[in-house]
Amino acid sequence: MGTSKGSSLLREIREVAERVDAFIHENFKAFPDFLQKACLHTVKAGGKRLRPFLVVKSCEICGGSSEKALPAAAAIELIHTFTLVHDDIMDRGEIRRGAPSVFVKWGIPVAILAGDLLFSRALEVFASCSLDPSTKFEVMAEMARVTSSICEGQAMDLSFTRPKEIPKEGEYIEMISKKTASLFASCCKIGAVIARADEKYVQALTQYGFSLGLAFQIVDDVLNIVGTEEELGKPVASDIREGKATLPVIKTLEKKPELHKLLLKEALEDSEVEQFINAIRECGALDECRSMAKAFVEEAKRHLEPFPASRTKALLLQLADFIVERRY
Amino acid sequence: MGTSKGSSLLREIREVAERVDAFIHENFKAFPDFLQKACLHTVKAGGKRLRPFLVVKSCEICGGSSEKALPAAAAIELIHTFTLVHDDIMDRGEIRRGAPSVFVKWGIPVAILAGDLLFSRALEVFASCSLDPSTKFEVMAEMARVTSSICEGQAMDLSFTRPKEIPKEGEYIEMISKKTASLFASCCKIGAVIARADEKYVQALTQYGFSLGLAFQIVDDVLNIVGTEEELGKPVASDIREGKATLPVIKTLEKKPELHKLLLKEALEDSEVEQFINAIRECGALDECRSMAKAFVEEAKRHLEPFPASRTKALLLQLADFIVERRY
Repeated sequence: MGTSKGSSLLREIREVAERVDAFIHENFKAFPDFLQKACLHTVKAGGKRLRPFLVVKSCEICGGSSEKALPAAAAIELIHTFTLVHDDIMDRGEIRRGAPSVFVKWGIPVAILAGDLLFSRALEVFASCSLDPSTKFEVMAEMARVTSSICEGQAMDLSFTRPKEIPKEGEYIEMISKKTASLFASCCKIGAVIARADEKYVQALTQYGFSLGLAFQIVDDVLNIVGTEEELGKPVASDIREGKATLPVIKTLEKKPELHKLLLKEALEDSEVEQFINAIRECGALDECRSMAKAFVEEAKRHLEPFPASRTKALLLQLADFIVERRY
Repeated sequence: MGTSKGSSLLREIREVAERVDAFIHENFKAFPDFLQKACLHTVKAGGKRLRPFLVVKSCEICGGSSEKALPAAAAIELIHTFTLVHDDIMDRGEIRRGAPSVFVKWGIPVAILAGDLLFSRALEVFASCSLDPSTKFEVMAEMARVTSSICEGQAMDLSFTRPKEIPKEGEYIEMISKKTASLFASCCKIGAVIARADEKYVQALTQYGFSLGLAFQIVDDVLNIVGTEEELGKPVASDIREGKATLPVIKTLEKKPELHKLLLKEALEDSEVEQFINAIRECGALDECRSMAKAFVEEAKRHLEPFPASRTKALLLQLADFIVERRY
C-alpha cells in the first residue's frame, strides 16, 4: 500500500478494530479467569478485523450508523474466532497469529469449550443490543446459517487434507465459498440489514462480500506459500506441511501429478517442502491464482456500482484492492 | 413405573420423541453423508427426549399447540446432543447410549465439527419455523444464553475431574445449575414463551424446570454408581473411573477423606472402583442424595401450583416423580 489512500483505509480498519475489541473485552468479563483467557487469547494475538470492518462499513454505506452495527460486528469477529480455535485443533495448527494456538496452550478440552463459548456468547451478546427484535432475529438467523455453511466448508476442507484424489478446482471453489466467502457475504448482508436497506442494496453488498471472500481466501493460500514467517504469524507453507490441497497446490498438481505423493506424506522434510514450493513457483500456478483473485476483486467492485459515490464506498473499493495487494 | 399412570407418561414421552426425531432427520438431509451420520449418531443411539417433552408440554399447559412448539423442541434436543458430543471428547467418554461415542467412531476433528454443526443447525432450523420474528428472537436469545451457561458449567465440571481439593456441595450445586438445570429451565421457559403465556406462568414453569433439572442431575449421578451397564448404556461408575467429584462422591469424601487419593488416580483397578462404590453405599451418601433430589422434585411440583388442573399438568407432575424413580 503506502499511498495516502491506503493508509487512510488501514487507519479506518484499525479504528473499527479498536472499538470492536473494546466491546468484546467488556463482554467476556463475567467468566472464570482461565476460560476468559482461553476465549480471548486468539483475539488478543492479532488479526486484521476485516470482517467487523465489513459489517460496519456495509451498514454505513446504506445510511446506518457504525454505532448500531458494532454489536453485530463484534459478534461476527467472535464467530470467526470460534472457527479458528476449533480449526486449529482439527488441523493441528500449533501457531496462530504468532502465538501458540489455544489447544496448545490450554489443551483440547478447554479449546473445544472456548470455541463453543465464543459462538454462544457471540449470539448472546448480540441479542442484548438495542436493535428491534425482528432485526435481531434476522441477523441471528443469518449468523446461524453462515456458521452451518462454515462447518460444511470445514468438513470439505478436512477431505482436502492428504487427499487420495487431487480435488478439482471447482470443488476448491465450492469449499472456500462455504468456508470463507459465505462469512464475508454475511458480514455485508448483516450490515445492510441493520441499516434497514432496500433488498436491492442488501443483495448487492452480499454479492460484493461473497466475491471479496473468494479473492481473500485465494490470496491467503498464495501468501501461505510466498509469505515470510513474520508476515504469516505461523510457519511458512504450513498448508503444504499439513498436506492441504489449496488452489496453488491443485494447479501445480494438474501440471506435475508426480508431486501428489509428497502431499500424502505425514511429515515432510524441509527439503521436500522447498521442492514443492519451487515447483509451485516455477509452474506459473501463483500467477494464475493471483489473476483469479484479481478477477473476483473486480467482480466485487462491480457489485458496488448501484451505490452513489461516498467516502464509505471509496473505502470498500480500496478494501477490495487491498485484499489482493496485501502481504499479510 | 409400571402403574397405568406411569405408562401413560412414558407413552406421551415416546409420542413427542417420535415427532421430534422425524423433524430432526428431515432437517439433516442436506449434509454430506459422513457429517450427517456423525451428527445424528448420538440421536439415533437413544435418549429419553425429556427436554423436548418439557418444551412441548410447557407450551401446552399455557394453551399453546404442540405443533407450534415442535421446532423449538427439536432445536433443544440438537443443542443437548451437541453438548454430549463435545463433552465426550473432553471427558474421554468412549461409550454413550450403548454405542461408541462420535469421537471414537469418526475421530476428534469430525466430532468437533459435528457438535458445532448440531448447534448452528439447531438455531438455523428453528429460525425457519413459522412463529413470528419477535418470538423467534426471544427463543433464540434464550438458546444462546443457556448454551453459554452450559459451557460455563462444563468448565466447572472439568475442574471437578481429579480435583486437588474436594469441591464443596455448594460448588457442585452451582455447577449442575449451570450445566443441567439451566437447560431444563430453558426448555420450560421456551415452551411458555411460544404459547405467549403471561410472565407469571413463564416464571413458574422456568422455576419448575430448574428444580427438576437439579433433581435430574443428582439422580443421574446416583444412577451412574448403582445402575447396571445395560441401564446406563455405558460402563458402571464411569464417573468414578473418570475421577469426577459428583454429589455422592463429595458426600462420601466428606466422611472418608482418605478415599480422595483414589479419585486422583489416572486409571483405577476394578477392585478400587468396587472399594469406592462400597464406601459410597455404606456411608449413607446415596440416601442423602436421593433425599435432596426428592426435595428438589417436591419444589418443582410446587411451582406448578398456579396452573389449574389439566391433563398436561398431571403429566408434568408425574414427570417430576418419574425423574427420581427412574432406573435409567
